[in-house]
Amino acid sequence: MSREILIRPFSESDWVELWPLLRDTFADGDTYAFDPASSEEAVRHAWITLPQATLVARAPDGQLLGTYYLKPNQTGLGGHVCNCGYVVSPAAQGQGVATRLCEHSQALARQHGFRAMQFNLVVATNTRAVRLWQHLGFSIVGTLPDAFRHARLGYVDAHVMYKPMV
Amino acid sequence: MSREILIRPFSESDWVELWPLLRDTFADGDTYAFDPASSEEAVRHAWITLPQATLVARAPDGQLLGTYYLKPNQTGLGGHVCNCGYVVSPAAQGQGVATRLCEHSQALARQHGFRAMQFNLVVATNTRAVRLWQHLGFSIVGTLPDAFRHARLGYVDAHVMYKPMV
Repeated sequence: MSREILIRPFSESDWVELWPLLRDTFADGDTYAFDPASSEEAVRHAWITLPQATLVARAPDGQLLGTYYLKPNQTGLGGHVCNCGYVVSPAAQGQGVATRLCEHSQALARQHGFRAMQFNLVVATNTRAVRLWQHLGFSIVGTLPDAFRHARLGYVDAHVMYKPMV
Repeated sequence: MSREILIRPFSESDWVELWPLLRDTFADGDTYAFDPASSEEAVRHAWITLPQATLVARAPDGQLLGTYYLKPNQTGLGGHVCNCGYVVSPAAQGQGVATRLCEHSQALARQHGFRAMQFNLVVATNTRAVRLWQHLGFSIVGTLPDAFRHARLGYVDAHVMYKPMV
């Protein structure tokens, strides 16, 4: 199932809804490295301040569907490779939102001149995400043994995933 | 050839010599992602302020031989994997200094409770470094196509290297 989505730059009035979405996502401790007890200030810095761009996805009725950020993955001579992070609202899972966010981010990354996109820590047990990124053109270039401390499963592997975009 | 080395925490009086060493190393644009024209402030932030620890290696006569930093490679649930960067003085190349720095960093990392060490962007054309890290127990877990913009060679591959330490 696919649905109508408006993806646009983050604006200040989004934060009141974005923060609980990010907080609850990270609190699960099964997909992102962020400390599950991260403060609002720390999450805001990482998701809004630090990235080159942060976007939000909303339904036509205004419902928050998800968000992503775009930033260089490294400084200087590695700065042509970008990194993105995506979060989909629990109520909007399974509706193609992550696909739409990732496709949007790739187009935006090309506009910004990036030549490739890299995910540094894709939790191996998050098989739905791994398959989705593969479907969207990303390869697993390597697997880091026990690199993620899963809140329920303990130490699990994480993949480095990469997609050339030129 | 191996030589006597004293490895100890960075102190403020080291900076006057450390900055030119780091500046000239990054200016070559063949090993580190740092912008070859990085400002003193930016390099100091990255090498001294941000890391959990920064160390310097000196000969018994006081000559600066090299330096390394140690920091978590990721936040929170990825924070048990550390990252290090090493720089050896040109005059001290080929004397086992990098080996000593890396061995020292692994011991320090274990003391700090890290469970693995990861290098995110080992420039593939820097074959001497790749072989040295392999000799010291690191594996190439994956290769990122064209992830490094080499100052002389253009886009070249970079390896992700990793060593479990438990």
